Amino acid sequence: MKINLQNVLPEDIEKRSFEILSDELGERFFSPEQEPIIKRAIHTSADFDYADNLKFSVDAVKKAASAIRKGACIVTDTQMAKSGINKKMLEKYGGEVFCFMSDEEIAQRAKERGTTRATACMDKAAALNRPLIFAIGNAPTALVRLYELMSEGALQPELIIGVPVGFVNVVESKELIMSTDVPYIVAAGRKGGSNIAAAICNAILYMIRDEKI
Amino acid sequence: MKINLQNVLPEDIEKRSFEILSDELGERFFSPEQEPIIKRAIHTSADFDYADNLKFSVDAVKKAASAIRKGACIVTDTQMAKSGINKKMLEKYGGEVFCFMSDEEIAQRAKERGTTRATACMDKAAALNRPLIFAIGNAPTALVRLYELMSEGALQPELIIGVPVGFVNVVESKELIMSTDVPYIVAAGRKGGSNIAAAICNAILYMIRDEKI
Repeated sequence: MKINLQNVLPEDIEKRSFEILSDELGERFFSPEQEPIIKRAIHTSADFDYADNLKFSVDAVKKAASAIRKGACIVTDTQMAKSGINKKMLEKYGGEVFCFMSDEEIAQRAKERGTTRATACMDKAAALNRPLIFAIGNAPTALVRLYELMSEGALQPELIIGVPVGFVNVVESKELIMSTDVPYIVAAGRKGGSNIAAAICNAILYMIRDEKI
Repeated sequence: MKINLQNVLPEDIEKRSFEILSDELGERFFSPEQEPIIKRAIHTSADFDYADNLKFSVDAVKKAASAIRKGACIVTDTQMAKSGINKKMLEKYGGEVFCFMSDEEIAQRAKERGTTRATACMDKAAALNRPLIFAIGNAPTALVRLYELMSEGALQPELIIGVPVGFVNVVESKELIMSTDVPYIVAAGRKGGSNIAAAICNAILYMIRDEKI
């Protein structure tokens, strides 16, 4: 077979990808604060639904950037999301990424209480006593537990990235977060995933690096 | 806000999700070998496009299962995919998961040769001299390099999972793989991702565990 590939230098592939997807988005207007996040979600999934389904609370990105600059940490509900987040860049500002899902004590605690491991992870995170951004790409139960912890006054996240994916309680858990006054970025509907959670974190980090926020 | 959630036990969430997505797929027929893979890709993305875009070479899944049972290893092009693959289950059959993307020598080699790191990773993998399944969720250049290595007779993969995502050379690189006689599972078009690559690997592993293949 004849190889008929675009001749793009390795270092230019990402730039060219953003050009193509921006072209295809056409005349659509996004706020400068939201645009890089929406485009990175599309870049990571090739799914243009993210142009419509990403919902932002007022000044969510500004608040997140300010928290990161002050050393906020990111808590995720999957090792995949943790693995995809640019940890070096976060560390520059003093933050780190936590995922407790594989911890032995979490499995134990979840079993004892009949909850998901993600629920137990949120309890552990709430006890960290550090400024926290939650990046939830998998478990709606994590969002439900965050809602409960906030209602009890036990937790005040700097931002909740609420992009679990799936079919059971996913839509509802996202609506729950959007009903609060916590800063949020949520993928309304069923879509999302660890890749989207990581992409949103990275988009914010790159905006900070490039002084676009 | 009233929390109006379905009452599903943690251990039943995945089962219930598969029931819902199966219902929504309706009367569509998939071969028993392909069905669990298609459904797990949908489960992991909530994107029903995977019901149409996943393409399988003849007996791809059977061949992959047989290779895994004989100790085949999985090579991925992202730490995210590596992180999502059920490594414990693969180890039961003697295989392991490799991702060389963060290796210092890979960055060096790619720079010297003006290639992507993914290309350099495929060269390193080809030298492993073990039966290999490639799970490519990010870099079309990895697929292009696999194509070249196979053409040169330097590599004979047991299976290529070709699901890079994106806008530059993604569609073309997948067509290239489908033009060969290597066993493949490919997401035709632009969609895919590390999550899809991991989901396909896990679907095959679970079919083996459950003796469905």
